[in-house]
Amino acid sequence: MNGKMVRYILGRMLGVEALLLLLPAFVGILYGEEKEALTFVIPAVILTCIFVIAGRKRPEGQVIYGKEGMVVVASAWITWSLFGALPFTLSGSIPNFVDAFFETVSGFTTTGSSILRDVEALPQCMLFWRSFTHWIGGMGVLVFVLMLTNLDKKNSMYLMRAEVPGPEKDKLVPKTKTTARILYGIYFGLTLILVILLMFGGMNLFDSLIHAFGSAGTGGFSNYADSVGYFDSAYIDYVISIFMILFGINFNLYYFMLLGDFKAFWKNEELRVYLGIIATATILITLNTNQMYGSIMKAFRYALFQVSTIITTTGYATTDFNLWPTFSQCIVVLLMIIGACASSTGGGIKVSRLMIVFKGVKREIKQLVHPKSVNLIRINRKKISDETLRGVYVYLMAYALLAIVSVLIISLDNQDFTTTFTSVMATLNNIGPGLSAVGPTGNFADFSILSKIVFCIDMLAGRLEIFPFLTFLTMFAWKRKF
Amino acid sequence: MNGKMVRYILGRMLGVEALLLLLPAFVGILYGEEKEALTFVIPAVILTCIFVIAGRKRPEGQVIYGKEGMVVVASAWITWSLFGALPFTLSGSIPNFVDAFFETVSGFTTTGSSILRDVEALPQCMLFWRSFTHWIGGMGVLVFVLMLTNLDKKNSMYLMRAEVPGPEKDKLVPKTKTTARILYGIYFGLTLILVILLMFGGMNLFDSLIHAFGSAGTGGFSNYADSVGYFDSAYIDYVISIFMILFGINFNLYYFMLLGDFKAFWKNEELRVYLGIIATATILITLNTNQMYGSIMKAFRYALFQVSTIITTTGYATTDFNLWPTFSQCIVVLLMIIGACASSTGGGIKVSRLMIVFKGVKREIKQLVHPKSVNLIRINRKKISDETLRGVYVYLMAYALLAIVSVLIISLDNQDFTTTFTSVMATLNNIGPGLSAVGPTGNFADFSILSKIVFCIDMLAGRLEIFPFLTFLTMFAWKRKF
Repeated sequence: MNGKMVRYILGRMLGVEALLLLLPAFVGILYGEEKEALTFVIPAVILTCIFVIAGRKRPEGQVIYGKEGMVVVASAWITWSLFGALPFTLSGSIPNFVDAFFETVSGFTTTGSSILRDVEALPQCMLFWRSFTHWIGGMGVLVFVLMLTNLDKKNSMYLMRAEVPGPEKDKLVPKTKTTARILYGIYFGLTLILVILLMFGGMNLFDSLIHAFGSAGTGGFSNYADSVGYFDSAYIDYVISIFMILFGINFNLYYFMLLGDFKAFWKNEELRVYLGIIATATILITLNTNQMYGSIMKAFRYALFQVSTIITTTGYATTDFNLWPTFSQCIVVLLMIIGACASSTGGGIKVSRLMIVFKGVKREIKQLVHPKSVNLIRINRKKISDETLRGVYVYLMAYALLAIVSVLIISLDNQDFTTTFTSVMATLNNIGPGLSAVGPTGNFADFSILSKIVFCIDMLAGRLEIFPFLTFLTMFAWKRKF
Repeated sequence: MNGKMVRYILGRMLGVEALLLLLPAFVGILYGEEKEALTFVIPAVILTCIFVIAGRKRPEGQVIYGKEGMVVVASAWITWSLFGALPFTLSGSIPNFVDAFFETVSGFTTTGSSILRDVEALPQCMLFWRSFTHWIGGMGVLVFVLMLTNLDKKNSMYLMRAEVPGPEKDKLVPKTKTTARILYGIYFGLTLILVILLMFGGMNLFDSLIHAFGSAGTGGFSNYADSVGYFDSAYIDYVISIFMILFGINFNLYYFMLLGDFKAFWKNEELRVYLGIIATATILITLNTNQMYGSIMKAFRYALFQVSTIITTTGYATTDFNLWPTFSQCIVVLLMIIGACASSTGGGIKVSRLMIVFKGVKREIKQLVHPKSVNLIRINRKKISDETLRGVYVYLMAYALLAIVSVLIISLDNQDFTTTFTSVMATLNNIGPGLSAVGPTGNFADFSILSKIVFCIDMLAGRLEIFPFLTFLTMFAWKRKF
């Protein structure tokens, strides 16, 4: 393994975090929270020192491969979270460091699960940083670093592969610094439009920034205990619903659109299925909860918001779906697992993976009935290779195994089965809330330290799509074998 | 499709059921239940007529393939259940035919879920038939028919493939009438030993027959509301525990043992993992419930019984695991999914499939770290082909899809999430009880007719390992396309 190069890239990445930490410090000063602002400067100074030591001088041998890529990415996400958690603990906002780490991992991985019992008690700069981590994590810490650093094409590819979500990585990944910049440009632009639209609906700048960060990164942290429900505005509900859906779409499609290729946008199979699932789920839940809300318009508004927030794995709430009928709750759990589109900011298994699985099973049945027929699996008219298919299957198996082990460990806390099961689903899929005790009105405060660490592993594994993280842990655990 | 041959084989199979129905009729006469006994004779007469019309004359073209095999097996299981349900409704024991069909499907598929609120109110001959279906279904209706009918080797292979459980069908399936007879001989012998051992423990002949049928078929119907807990005997608990474990072992291993090949028995990887899981789960639950039962011996006795009954998908109960801590409950849910060994009478996903999945994920991680290494998946030192591996993956995907659709439909009944989720797991894996409302002390009576039909489909799909049944439904639904 090229240890020097790993150290060099890590050093540069930590330098970038130092820069990012200055923003909440600035917000703190603006709101007269000088003492809290200082707690951002301390880790920023430490990070700058690390950068000067490790990230300044470029090593000779610059070649890295998949293995190094995974180690860099996994350790970058962990160290970013460790340093990002420091301000919470130093300022006393979240005294326990494990809790602060949980909150920061939840932020960077755009999960949005919280251990805070009273979020509104936090200083403004802490609230800002908490939501800002969503925005950074949404696009990926690496794309960010890639814009500011000088890696050649091949090296950056190995890094991106480990971070960008979806079943067919090499094809979708932005391969140069330029495309990375364009993608971040789209991300920035959409966020800006959302901020303006939210202010238009009566939000102040701070609130609209917070909620735009949470929507863009599909994170879900709010600065109000009632989440988006606090505003109780149909306009805001619909705006955020639509933008969450937009951020759940494959960003490469926006790139095609910028190039004038609208056909590629509308003919994309994953997009159609994604929108189809949202439409179907919204209609079913509207019909199922109609009676509860007393009006079909109100039921539709709540259904659309909750469907968008769950399938994009954002996790905002405008109503407590713990009170919904079981059918609607089961749809929610199903949407949790489905997740958004590949190469979006959303988490979960991803629509395209499920499409591949579905077509794989369909092909199997066809072949059982007509053993001699040749059936190819196609998505967007392109043939899915056997390797991709196998990759998807193995991914889902690893996903299931991780979920099972997590559920078993979490169950030691002796919460009820629904809480235990959905808390793992909510963190592994980077959603935020689950059902029962971890529902939209609950939080993760009451779990044991062991459980919180397992949730952190699940959030990181979910965001990095399991294998980079699992590989990292494997290499860490059996150091000698590699 | 060779329709004539399908009709011929089906005709013969229904003839066999006519014979089997005479046994409970005889029991009815013994217990002075002449009126009830008559309700077995009526379907037996109808079935004999069908046999005479369809199953007497052998058609000219005798060639059948996988497709026909699946159609025969799926329709055989459905028609056997339809006719097997008649006595329950005709006698008024279960007035609603859907309920009676549910109970019979649950019997033949060795599930053991019941819609009966008061099982002890049933006449003796009905109780006998109910449990006898477990014993017949355990080994498979086809192996039974194969012994009594004249099909050539190749044809019977296609039939067996559709019925015998496990990931590598062609290798494990008994290929001739002789081996089918030997396997049934082992099955019969083990059942007989169990009957004798149970009578030794103080059970009367009737009770021990009922409980031996349920254990041998890994079904779980009892004639007491408290199930095996009724006897409250440590001896009976341990005897049934051990025999359930024995019936969950691959029957081919007993065959090897009969041939004197003890090495093949003890060196079998699946068997070792299966016993390892049982030991681990028993120890964990014993430690976790120790406090609740007040004595480690008592906790161990209940833990071993419940672990054995769930992993072998039998479903007897000696205690209500609804009252266990969540950790133990989660282990129970996990065991539900794991299931027994391939080619045993147990259901579930099967230990060997999970071993293949586990080794597949392990290989993937190895290959990510060392991209150039060649890693084969081996079970029992034999290489697992890519085709088998793909088959396992697709099977699990189909399993998950079926589970998801079922949960959504069942959730319309608006039972709590735990009941909804575990009732599907309990039927799809042919176990019997789940958690919450369908726990060991509950039943399936309160579900809607739609839900009961979905459960029947799940039980049949679970027993036939999904694809034969799914193919049958597909062909049935899009008749013209095939």
